[in-house]
Amino acid sequence: MPKTAGIILIGNEILSGKIADVNAAYLCRELRQLGVDVRRISVVPDEVELIAREVTAQSRDFDVVFTSGGVGPTHDDVTIEGVARAMGVPVVRHPRLVATLEGYYRGELNDAHLKMAETPEGAELVGGEPVRFPTILMRNVYVLPGVPEIFRTKFEALRERFRDAPIHLKNVFVSIGEGELADYLNGLLADFPLLLLGSYPEFSNPEYRVKVTLESRDPGYLEKALAELLRRLPVRAVVQVT
Amino acid sequence: MPKTAGIILIGNEILSGKIADVNAAYLCRELRQLGVDVRRISVVPDEVELIAREVTAQSRDFDVVFTSGGVGPTHDDVTIEGVARAMGVPVVRHPRLVATLEGYYRGELNDAHLKMAETPEGAELVGGEPVRFPTILMRNVYVLPGVPEIFRTKFEALRERFRDAPIHLKNVFVSIGEGELADYLNGLLADFPLLLLGSYPEFSNPEYRVKVTLESRDPGYLEKALAELLRRLPVRAVVQVT
Repeated sequence: MPKTAGIILIGNEILSGKIADVNAAYLCRELRQLGVDVRRISVVPDEVELIAREVTAQSRDFDVVFTSGGVGPTHDDVTIEGVARAMGVPVVRHPRLVATLEGYYRGELNDAHLKMAETPEGAELVGGEPVRFPTILMRNVYVLPGVPEIFRTKFEALRERFRDAPIHLKNVFVSIGEGELADYLNGLLADFPLLLLGSYPEFSNPEYRVKVTLESRDPGYLEKALAELLRRLPVRAVVQVT
Repeated sequence: MPKTAGIILIGNEILSGKIADVNAAYLCRELRQLGVDVRRISVVPDEVELIAREVTAQSRDFDVVFTSGGVGPTHDDVTIEGVARAMGVPVVRHPRLVATLEGYYRGELNDAHLKMAETPEGAELVGGEPVRFPTILMRNVYVLPGVPEIFRTKFEALRERFRDAPIHLKNVFVSIGEGELADYLNGLLADFPLLLLGSYPEFSNPEYRVKVTLESRDPGYLEKALAELLRRLPVRAVVQVT
């Protein structure tokens, strides 16, 4: 059961501002709900060496890694080569992917299409049905496409693999500013050092000034920390608890 | 004049899927228009050591670096400390920022507020008016806040610092798939090796199947490459050029 994850977005189109990525935000939400802690997102160019370097680091540092983008038949699709280089293996054509492509393209299959049958040597194919094309898994690295609809379909076919103990969340909306709030939060952390505590100011909402988030995998610990925070805060300061 | 840039987003709230970042996409668009090449975006947690490590790497690898988030008065605002550690200097209170805060908070100024007067030792303050609070610049690292409205206001006050020779762009929308297109693109790159060439399939638009992007800082080179691509492609394949 993976506890930590990293995400690598491969794409000059993101770095050059042509498109705004949506896959990372989607994956962060999904993984959080599954109880997985995303520790890093990196956006790197369509360059084999830079992809390989990031895959090497994240594959070593985290339980599971997801790549998005850079898979396809054209010159700028170099993710498979980057993952293979990171793992120190060659790129090979996977017989099952070749067969799938032959069935799909029939007489029109060419070398460019066959690039989509390439995997790092030793990769597994996972999450087949109901997805037409399976996902390439190389050690702990899942290689996903950049197109958001396909990214989601493929992830959904895999999601139950990643379920872990859930991370419980409570939100406290307060009417005081962060400057006044800081001491309360520092005091709470001193007594609940394992609490994940966030403080997010809101400048355009008239209803509250800061959202405080409390999180833990232990629901009892979370409830105790929440009760203690509410006991300490001035009553006038608490707008809502969700 | 900076040619390359990196972006570091500091925020557990992004990694845990609570909010979707908009600052990186904004900055990528703006910097591209200014002629700056963004080479990397990293999202890291609110942890001093991880921030320091990323700042060290990006500050060394790129001409200019932007951080977003983690500046404020609470316990999870540790960006300044991370930048200071990356640069091997202590955190100090900047007299000009202390004076600004004294003017703003008057009698209510406390230690938490004064955390917002902290900078890495040796930092400059830049882009003052019309922004109420200036931006902290430590060597080649600009420290910006995570709140999008303030992030933009501060960047706009600085943007002319980053203007470089523009990167020119042409888009060719084609009705053929990437599998058929790949050979044309490979051929074009063989003859125009300095061209930045992108290929982006579109699965839900009935008007075209792939958007091809051609880019260069040299407008003459770009025009020649575009003319050559249009000459080689089957006439039926070209839907639109913009």
